[in-house]
Formats: sequence, C-alpha cells, structure tokens
Amino acid sequence: MAQSSTEEASAYDQLLTKYKRIANVENAGGILSWDQQVMMPDAGTPARSQQMSALSALSHDLLTDDEFGELLEAAEADDPTDEQADVLRELRRDYERAVRVPNDLVEQISAAASEAIPAWKEAKANDDFETFAPHLEKHVELKRQYAEHIDPDRDPYEVLFEDYEPCLPLEQAEEILDEVREVLVEMIADIRESDVELAVDAFDGEFPADEQEELVRDALSTLGYPWERGRLDTAPHPFSSGTQFDARVTTRYDESDPLGSLFSTIHEFGHALYTLGLPDEHYATPLGEDRNLSVHESQSRLWENHVGRSRTFWQHFLPTFTEHFSDVDATVEEAYEAANQVYEDNLIRVEADELTYHLHIVIRFELERALISGDLAVEDVPEAWNDKYEEYLGIRPETDSEGCLQDIHWAYGNFGYFPTYSLGSIMSAQLFAAAEDDIENLDEKLSNGEFADLREWLRENVHQHGRRYETNDLVKRATGADFAADDFLDYVESKYTALYDL
Amino acid sequence: MAQSSTEEASAYDQLLTKYKRIANVENAGGILSWDQQVMMPDAGTPARSQQMSALSALSHDLLTDDEFGELLEAAEADDPTDEQADVLRELRRDYERAVRVPNDLVEQISAAASEAIPAWKEAKANDDFETFAPHLEKHVELKRQYAEHIDPDRDPYEVLFEDYEPCLPLEQAEEILDEVREVLVEMIADIRESDVELAVDAFDGEFPADEQEELVRDALSTLGYPWERGRLDTAPHPFSSGTQFDARVTTRYDESDPLGSLFSTIHEFGHALYTLGLPDEHYATPLGEDRNLSVHESQSRLWENHVGRSRTFWQHFLPTFTEHFSDVDATVEEAYEAANQVYEDNLIRVEADELTYHLHIVIRFELERALISGDLAVEDVPEAWNDKYEEYLGIRPETDSEGCLQDIHWAYGNFGYFPTYSLGSIMSAQLFAAAEDDIENLDEKLSNGEFADLREWLRENVHQHGRRYETNDLVKRATGADFAADDFLDYVESKYTALYDL
Repeated sequence: MAQSSTEEASAYDQLLTKYKRIANVENAGGILSWDQQVMMPDAGTPARSQQMSALSALSHDLLTDDEFGELLEAAEADDPTDEQADVLRELRRDYERAVRVPNDLVEQISAAASEAIPAWKEAKANDDFETFAPHLEKHVELKRQYAEHIDPDRDPYEVLFEDYEPCLPLEQAEEILDEVREVLVEMIADIRESDVELAVDAFDGEFPADEQEELVRDALSTLGYPWERGRLDTAPHPFSSGTQFDARVTTRYDESDPLGSLFSTIHEFGHALYTLGLPDEHYATPLGEDRNLSVHESQSRLWENHVGRSRTFWQHFLPTFTEHFSDVDATVEEAYEAANQVYEDNLIRVEADELTYHLHIVIRFELERALISGDLAVEDVPEAWNDKYEEYLGIRPETDSEGCLQDIHWAYGNFGYFPTYSLGSIMSAQLFAAAEDDIENLDEKLSNGEFADLREWLRENVHQHGRRYETNDLVKRATGADFAADDFLDYVESKYTALYDL
Repeated sequence: MAQSSTEEASAYDQLLTKYKRIANVENAGGILSWDQQVMMPDAGTPARSQQMSALSALSHDLLTDDEFGELLEAAEADDPTDEQADVLRELRRDYERAVRVPNDLVEQISAAASEAIPAWKEAKANDDFETFAPHLEKHVELKRQYAEHIDPDRDPYEVLFEDYEPCLPLEQAEEILDEVREVLVEMIADIRESDVELAVDAFDGEFPADEQEELVRDALSTLGYPWERGRLDTAPHPFSSGTQFDARVTTRYDESDPLGSLFSTIHEFGHALYTLGLPDEHYATPLGEDRNLSVHESQSRLWENHVGRSRTFWQHFLPTFTEHFSDVDATVEEAYEAANQVYEDNLIRVEADELTYHLHIVIRFELERALISGDLAVEDVPEAWNDKYEEYLGIRPETDSEGCLQDIHWAYGNFGYFPTYSLGSIMSAQLFAAAEDDIENLDEKLSNGEFADLREWLRENVHQHGRRYETNDLVKRATGADFAADDFLDYVESKYTALYDL
C-alpha cells in the first residue's frame, strides 16, 4: 500500500483527507459552542446561531457529498488493512445515517427544536404542559420519519438510540437497565426504611465561590489534569469539550454546596481525560475521536463516583479541603457519608445521587420508548411520568415543572439520549473493577493521591483506541467480559449495604 | 422584485444566501482566532491550525464555486436596485480576486508563510538578516505571480495593495503619503532642534496591572462601549475582532506605562465601535461588513488621537485617572504634554508617536514597492532601510533586529498592508474635522465626557454604510471632499507648533 509522492493518493487516503476537513469543521463548531457558553456576551446570539448553522450545514454537505460515497466504496474494495477496515466501518456508519435522511427533514427537525425550546421554557416556568405538548407531538412525528428513512424495517427507537449509542445493541442496553431498575427499586425502598443517619451536615456552611475555585483547581491538579492542554472556566451548565490538544472543563459554584462544584469538576475531568487520551497522531480521524456517549460517561462517572466519592479519595483530599475551608471539621468517614447520602425524596434528575439517578433515567427511557412506538400518547405523559415516579421511587411530583417538564432533552427532539447516562455509570463500575484487578494496590495508591496508574490504565485500555473498537469489543478487551450490570450491582450493594446498614 | 413563497428565490437572493454562508464561516474563523490569542492553552496549536485551514479552504471553495459565479452573473443581468448593485459590485470584486488565483498558488503562499515566520523570529532574535532573506525572496516571487494572475497588465504592487485597500487608487494614496512625508520630515527635524521640554515624566511610576485594568474598563464605559455586545481581555498583541453583535477588544499592561494600555484600549474601542455600528439587519452581507482596513484604522485613530490625546479628553478623564492612581500629580496640561511627546530617537514603529509613525510607514511603503517592482534586491533591504531612516528621521538603526526585521508583516507575505495604517490616521483627521463642523460645541461636549454625539455622527456617516460606498465616496459623503491629507496636515501643524513652539 506504500505510495510514492508522484502516484495519486489511494482512495483511503483521499477519503481520510475529506473526513479530516469534516472533523475540523465540527471541532471548530465545538469552539464556537464553548465560547457561547463561557465567554460570549448575551447580545451575540443572533450571529452565533448563524455561524453554528453554517458550520453544521457545511459538515453535513461534505459528508453526504457523492464523492465521499464513491471514495468510501473504492476504499472498502481496496483490500484495507485491519486498522483501515475499522476506520471504514465508522465512516460507513456516519455516511449512511447522514445520506439517508433528506436535508429537508433535517431542517424541519432543527426548526421544530427552535420553536420547542422556548415553548418548553415557558411551559416549565408556568407548570403548563399544554404549551409544550404540541411541540413534543411534532418531535415524535418527525423523529419517527427520521428513523424510517434510516431503516424502515427496524424499531424506530432502536434507530434513534443509535444516534447516541451507535454500536451497543438496544436489547442489551434494555436488559442492563431492567436489571439495575429491579435491584435499585428495592434497595432505595430499604434505604427509606433504614434508621441509619449519615453525617449529612458535614459540609454545611458558606463557601465563597473564589475559594471553591481554588479548591477545584487543586483537585484538578491533584488528579493530574494537564493545564497546558486545558483550562477551567465557569458555565451555567457545566460541560467539557475540545480535542486531545485542548480539552477544557467548566463548573459552577453554589456557595452553600462545595461538594456540588467539586464533584461536577471531577466529572468533567473524567470526560476531558478521555479526550486528552485520544492519540494525537489520529487527530480529526475516527481513531482519534471518542467512541460514543456511554463510553464518555463511563469516564466521567468513574472519576466522579469511584474515585471522588470513595473513602480513599477523602483520605487524601480532606486536608486539602480544610486548607481552603478551615471551618469544616469533618472526619474522613463523615466526609465519605456526606458525599454518598441518598436523596430518596428528590424529584429532580440533576440533583440525584448515585443510586436514585438511574431510576430517573429508567423512567425517561421507558416513557420515550412508549412515545416513539405509539403506546403512549403525548397527552398522557404527565400522568404516566408521575405514576412511574411513585412506582419506582415512592414519590409523586405535584407539578409537571418538577415532573415531566424538568429536562430540556425532549425539547431538542433527543430521544435515546437519556439511557446513555446510566449505561455510562454502569460501565464505569465494570471498568473500575478491572482496573482494581490489574493495578497492584490501587486503593492504597488512591488514598496516597497517586492517580497516575489509574490514568494510565484508562488511557491504555480505553482512551487510546478512539473509535477503533465497537462498544462491547472495547469493554471486553478492557475487562475480559461483555458490557453487563454485574460489577455495578456488586459495587452499589456492597457500598450502600454498609452505609445504610441494610 | 417581490416574490411569493412558492416562486423560486431570485438569483440575487440565492447569491446572498450563498454569501452569508461564506461570511459566517469567516466569522467563525474570527472566533477561533480570538480564542487562540486570548484563551487557548499553548498545546492547542496543532489542532487549531488545522481547524483554521479547513475553514479558510471551505470559504475559498464556496466563493470560487461555479454556481456562485453563475448566480452573480444572473443577478447582475437582472436589473438590480441601487442597493443590490452596490452589493453586487463588492461580490464581483471578491469573486474575481478569488477565482483568478489558482488554489495551488494560494497553498504555496500559505506554506511559504509557515516557513518564513519561524525563520523571521530566529533572524530577529539573532540579528541575522541572512536567515530571513531567502524567505523574503520567495514571498516576493510568489506575490508577483499572485498579482499577475489577478491582472497581468497592471503594476503588481497596485494589485497587492488592493487586497487591503480595494477601492482607493494607489496613485492617490501615494500622493497623500508623499505630501505627509514632506511636511513631517521637516517638522520632526524642527522638533529635534526645539528647546521646549514637555512634561514627559507626568506618568512616571509603578502602575499595577489589575488597577490598570480597572482604569481602562472605566475608560471604555466612559466612551460608551456597550458591554452587552463585547468584552475586554488581555492579549500579547492587542487587537479587536467580532461582528455587530459581539465586538471584543483586547489590551496588554506594562506596569511602567499606564498610557500604553489606555491608548491601546481606546484605539481598539474605535475599531470595535465601527464594527458595532454596522447594521444588524445586514449581518453577514457586504452592507453589514466594514469597508476596508484604512477606514477601520480611521476609526481607531480618531478615538485614540483626536479624542484620547486631546486636552479636552484629559480635562474630563484626569480625575478618573487619579482615582485609580493617586500618586500621579499632573495638571491637565502636563497630562496632555506627556500623551503627545514626540520620540524623535525611536527606531521602532509600534513604539512611535503620532508624528514619527508615518515616516516609519512611508519607509516600509517605499521599500516594499521597490521590492515588488524589482528596483530593490532583497539583499539590499537592510542598507536601504537604514539609509531611509537616516534621511527621513535622522536616526540610523545599528542592527537589523531594530531595523528591517522589526515587523512580522513581510514574513506573512503581506505587501501593501503597511500604508493602510497611515492612510487611516490621515483619514481620521479629515473625519474629525467634519465632525467638529457638524456637531455644535463638540469640544465642550468632549471635555464634559459627552461622547454620544460623536459616536452617533460616526455611526451615521461611516459605520452604518458597511461596504455600500467605495472609499472616496464614503469620505466625500461624510466630509464633503475626496480623501486628502489637508486636514491631517492642518491638525499636526497646529498641534505640534503649539506644543514645541516651532
């Protein structure tokens, strides 16, 4: 396959050059989005929206260009190496999904979202589901059409799920979520009955935002965030974004809740570390891009839950914490308890703990499947939502604002996104268990603030592969088993049985 | 020309839609560039370079697309309105310049710059012109080819000048610069002989950077910078960038020179105010874009020199200054003198005052013209440079680092850019004189810190027109006369005769 400089580039090389341009346009869009959320003055929105639309239209045009399809076919026929075959599998998937959906429908979905988002905001503010209902109806209808264009012979929800989770069978995801639901419903009911009182007031007080910023900067440095390839800023909804050369994190500060910014920062650190571990030399190609949302979330949750909420982390980090906030007078055990309390009466997903979180997700997953299949009518969503909260969590929302209107995702027309949050958490338990097996004295290392071995294990087993392996393949290479709920269930059972004396 | 929604859009409307996409891609590139200079961590360069290249290649592809040319021709033939004809004139010029230059040559020039910039840095650091000479030679050769593709029948320098100054005849620019040179050479020689000692130490001392930042924020607010459409940050080389919805300024702080950051900020304010005065409704079309570099510079220099360095400004602003820096004990007259001292022994353009600045520019202008025409060989640049400094400014550089290697522009292959700096300053005098005629008691207003009338005059006479009028037309509509040096020469003669008792 070697070629001299006078020969024409192979179909594969030409294809990759074309793909790099697409990826660079998308990464440019990522910078514009970061800027909009972190730096842009408010009045900049009209221009920014047009700039972002121009970039997405261009990247779509480049991907659906006939020549891209022809080069893809030629490269597939040209006896690809294993690595090339992995790249071509990813490009083929991207291409097929883009090319099957008419531009007109893409624009309709985007226009529907532009109208649905302000309607959702209004509906949530006024606790008035009726305002949002026709927009949700419209999205359901358009997304069914969308799925049908991609594959008329399959369950449309399955097709939509693949927008976020392209290579994990929906059936497997469903089994995992069902199993988790079954265990957690019972466990949370038991916790509700438990007499144990955790040290939930260990971090009560006032925590000025600038001192919190110093604290989370220390946390990032401790965990090994490479500042020369990133930065920390404030954003209303924390996120991370970027490339292996420049992966930035954001957080926000609530002056009565220092654990909020700390865990949110550690979460975003996990995302950024994944991005930074993608190979430099494969920048802007599938081998230098993240696998998908659930794998990304497995990285953020691993650092947030398995590291940040662990006893060992607090053994190391509590002195740093009290350097910044000397009024806090908690023991390691108290800090650990406060960091792991279960909010069994909380109705809001984004304020949930490590356990109840997954029931919030399972409810959305079950409802959106039923919406797309037609088993649930839009008008019946509020009651179905409330019934499920009562059934799974033992609590019933009194308003739709704190019920089915709480999240923005459906206003964007995103169906199939929610489950990736839970799948990522569940995957993080499997990966962490494997890391514990592979790394000698991992617990001791973490309690000494030595995070390098864990970072390196993740880089080697997850990050460096980019999109080379599909999800199960990646997980199996890293852990020796297909992706499943077992390690997660072991983890929560052992942790919460001890905490709540179940 | 009205059209119903069922009719196909007119050629003009289709063309404008295409142009908007190009403009949005370029504006996205502007955000990436701002981010790179202000926010990006160092290690981000490799990815950022690829993102920027992808965007410029795309915008070039979109502009040189056959369909763009066809729509342009159809729109021109379709009985355009006056406004449409103005837009089409601008699009035709952009299109012709882009389409005549082969992609291959564009890439060669870009590659030559990538090699020349580090070579220039090395040459400047080591005072070694030989290191840079072959790169300069290469740029001269490529830029001659570039000009020949655009128009083989004209002076290639004239063609290159039009990259920065598309609609001001070079002959007129040359006359203006010649006239200015003649007067200034003599005036600076007289100042050198003058016995007057200005209050040059009025702002001696230590001025902490954070307090300087507070000061320049106050200055921006005083002048009327709309913070909801912009922001202030620090950058190694101050600049401003953005759109009418979001025009940002940057500055830098030298703790021994508070006037440096102040005037640099006021300068960038002038640029930003121009951008902000472009009409919102014409965003991403020629009527919503700046005329060109010299008009842009006329706006920055007007605020920097005619406002910021005026007695009236200091009457208003000195109390604010001393609120921030109470050690400064200068009178308004002393502040005015310190802000207007002539550095007759300074060799460095970017450190020059309002008078000597133009001789620095004229020297570069004369040399680059001779380089492109072939009258000056690259190897003879250092001596020619030093001779001209001696002739015009009465000083001779001892090294090439502080001589012909001081500026980066030629390393980028930019020939024809330098004169726009002086042309803008000279234009600012003509505009300010017209504003003084039109606005009742302007001086009194400025001394009271009332800047609204001046801002409004500029918006109405310059900013709101975008690229609708060509340069002379714009200046004539604003001032009643073609662009000329008269007002500038009146201004400097009256100001500096008084200051130095000439």
